[in-house]
Amino acid sequence: MRTATGAEAGGDVSVRAVLANPRATRLGRRYLDTDLNRCFTHAALNGPLSDAPPYEMTRARELDALLGPKGSPRAVDLVCDLHNSTSNMGLCVIAFSDCDWICLHVFRYLQRQMPDIPVRYIHLDVPDEESFSLDSVGKHGFALEIGPQPHGVVRSDIYTAMKDGLQHTLDWVRLFNSGAVFEGGPVDLFTAVGHVDYPREADTQNIMAAIHPKLQDQDFCLLRPEEPMFQTFSGQTLRYKGSEPLYPFFINECAYYEKGVALYLARKRSVTLPTLRVHKKGHPANFVSVQEEE
Amino acid sequence: MRTATGAEAGGDVSVRAVLANPRATRLGRRYLDTDLNRCFTHAALNGPLSDAPPYEMTRARELDALLGPKGSPRAVDLVCDLHNSTSNMGLCVIAFSDCDWICLHVFRYLQRQMPDIPVRYIHLDVPDEESFSLDSVGKHGFALEIGPQPHGVVRSDIYTAMKDGLQHTLDWVRLFNSGAVFEGGPVDLFTAVGHVDYPREADTQNIMAAIHPKLQDQDFCLLRPEEPMFQTFSGQTLRYKGSEPLYPFFINECAYYEKGVALYLARKRSVTLPTLRVHKKGHPANFVSVQEEE
Repeated sequence: MRTATGAEAGGDVSVRAVLANPRATRLGRRYLDTDLNRCFTHAALNGPLSDAPPYEMTRARELDALLGPKGSPRAVDLVCDLHNSTSNMGLCVIAFSDCDWICLHVFRYLQRQMPDIPVRYIHLDVPDEESFSLDSVGKHGFALEIGPQPHGVVRSDIYTAMKDGLQHTLDWVRLFNSGAVFEGGPVDLFTAVGHVDYPREADTQNIMAAIHPKLQDQDFCLLRPEEPMFQTFSGQTLRYKGSEPLYPFFINECAYYEKGVALYLARKRSVTLPTLRVHKKGHPANFVSVQEEE
Repeated sequence: MRTATGAEAGGDVSVRAVLANPRATRLGRRYLDTDLNRCFTHAALNGPLSDAPPYEMTRARELDALLGPKGSPRAVDLVCDLHNSTSNMGLCVIAFSDCDWICLHVFRYLQRQMPDIPVRYIHLDVPDEESFSLDSVGKHGFALEIGPQPHGVVRSDIYTAMKDGLQHTLDWVRLFNSGAVFEGGPVDLFTAVGHVDYPREADTQNIMAAIHPKLQDQDFCLLRPEEPMFQTFSGQTLRYKGSEPLYPFFINECAYYEKGVALYLARKRSVTLPTLRVHKKGHPANFVSVQEEE
């Protein structure tokens, strides 16, 4: 199994470390022209390019050539895209599938290996052709998201947890490649079902409220109808008006202000993992396939 | 007393609200070309300008014309410059003087009015002509600094505390203008005596460690010799090698990475405030002066 990650590692796993957006990293920003992590749909990767395309549009094609092409048999086996968030996310595996057993088994392995930090699985329920992020370029892929950490800051606790998470991910791949059997069983995951924007003034569209203090940092804690959601800048409490109790996440994430997202809402579900072991051992990993065992 | 602050207020105080760096605010950045809040030295304000000066150099002169000129009798009486930090600062009054009784009495008033948040006074001990920040343009001035809050994010608790701090500041000015007597007495303040950079690799100058988890968020907690200060990215603990126990602040502030500042260190001191009341009432405030009473 070949793996693309944001950090170096070795052993019996073939790993390529890639800095996704080097120009933005140099400037300490998320992106220069447009959000790179929305540039990996089939349409964005394969459609016509303007004469002076945004930097990230061309960078996405470079990454697709390097790690993909997306959807092709030449794509790497697993892309693990490392992210950090201002939200109180703990460690999250974020993927476009709720039945990619590779991703889900890695997630369960992380959960068991890292008892000191909450580890969750977020399922972004969009059609395959609309999967938009870098991790969708591999045969399997997920973002490893961690928080809270301000952008432009390294917190040692967060850095260490991410390093551990990545190390355990690579350990899992090593075990997988060596023919280990991963027992099946139930896991909980969170399927995103919507998002909520900040309240805005009708005329200017300026934001007029912040996340309510009682909701701030309460990612993955059940939000019930009529519980506080926002506090306006004049002090008024605005409440959650949905009819279904749901789980908020990415609460007050810095990068999502511009996207009109104050928080996402998810339904919690249980899925049953099948027992998993590699069908055919060998390196490089394009020869590796996965067999779901009965 | 005329006052320049970052928010609107009224009553019997003449207030002017100014957005210091509107272009950077629009982009969600601290500055475009150079740090505005280092552009208010006499040399920067009055020296020759290049043909294409950095935006902030010209903006500093606009602000000096509006609120100053610095050091002149026409300058506003009090500049209160609102800032937020990724560091766990609580609420801080930051000033260039340890004997500006206006600033110190405002500080003590904030401390008493806001028992739920730690309020501290930081004294930046530089010569008058080198005072570099916007608040140095007024006859009196301080930065009101609050944290922790990631840049680009509004946290409702932090927003509310800052609003309260500003409201109490204006209340104090109103009381002052009305002739109220402010009793003297001792207060503690923190005088900055130095700063520490992140450990760097000798060849690349790349940062090789983050603030140690035991020091992170411990702003204004006494740091003793040999206590942990950094944790390298390979996990090694680096210790504080100074000989004097000192108080760290601005620990892991996002905007100071580029300045080579991982934290500042301060000595705690006690000063005794004189009793204070306005000498001569009247508006506008250029007629207001301050008398130290025996």
